[in-house]
Amino acid sequence: MNIKPIGFIHTPFHRLDNMPIQPVGARDVEGEVIVDEAYQDGLKDLEGFSHIYLIYFFHKADKTNLHVVPYLDTEERGVFATRSPLRPSHIGLSLVELIAVNGNRLTFRGVDMLDGTPLLDIKPYIPKFETGDSVRTGWMQSHSETIEKKRSDKRFV
Amino acid sequence: MNIKPIGFIHTPFHRLDNMPIQPVGARDVEGEVIVDEAYQDGLKDLEGFSHIYLIYFFHKADKTNLHVVPYLDTEERGVFATRSPLRPSHIGLSLVELIAVNGNRLTFRGVDMLDGTPLLDIKPYIPKFETGDSVRTGWMQSHSETIEKKRSDKRFV
Repeated sequence: MNIKPIGFIHTPFHRLDNMPIQPVGARDVEGEVIVDEAYQDGLKDLEGFSHIYLIYFFHKADKTNLHVVPYLDTEERGVFATRSPLRPSHIGLSLVELIAVNGNRLTFRGVDMLDGTPLLDIKPYIPKFETGDSVRTGWMQSHSETIEKKRSDKRFV
Repeated sequence: MNIKPIGFIHTPFHRLDNMPIQPVGARDVEGEVIVDEAYQDGLKDLEGFSHIYLIYFFHKADKTNLHVVPYLDTEERGVFATRSPLRPSHIGLSLVELIAVNGNRLTFRGVDMLDGTPLLDIKPYIPKFETGDSVRTGWMQSHSETIEKKRSDKRFV
């Protein structure tokens, strides 16, 4: 599948270590999306949404590991049961807070990606589309309390 | 970006019209994911999660429209403010309920994709990673009540 970026994500993070590991660890950190001008018209109506999904490419992840030790754990887990960049597709997903839309520029809060990350898609966050049912989160259950303070290291480099 | 599928999604839907338009419209419909055996080890620990994101390719969407009339609306909206398949990347995202993992087969509930859809990634759903803040959903606000009953037509074909 040949998928072209629709733009790029600009963030204060230029190195893979010491980054927040999820948007909840970076609620106050602002980033900017610059969408290719050819796609600017597709941003119409987006400013009505407070939160958006960014789907992007982990461009610095050049290997695949089927088992990884997540930042929030000490045991090896299957990569699809984690958010590690070392997944076969190298696709990332973050739910962020949309602050402003100006032309082809989006300002957002909750930055957990590297500067220069290629953006593949933007989708509106619609809680009605998500689950209201009871949720189980496997190995994550006992570790999720610490996520806001956790920072990345070099394990996925 | 050359992104290879990690498997395929099998569903009861063989035609683009008259499909549920989101997983909430298909809570009881079961589908199956068959992951390429080369990636089966990456599924370890996934069964602990009740819900997973499927990221897939809208393989029957061969055009891009920057403005679309969503199924839940009567006005043209920017494609990035919708979940329409006619987005530049043709990437789809669905949050589904994971029922069982058997070897390289996942059974899930909440099927809103076409049979034979190429799967790009699987990610665990972790509510702590998502927002707890107040959410606004733009044009969708006044239309989201009807989504469970809504079905697709040929507008995105």
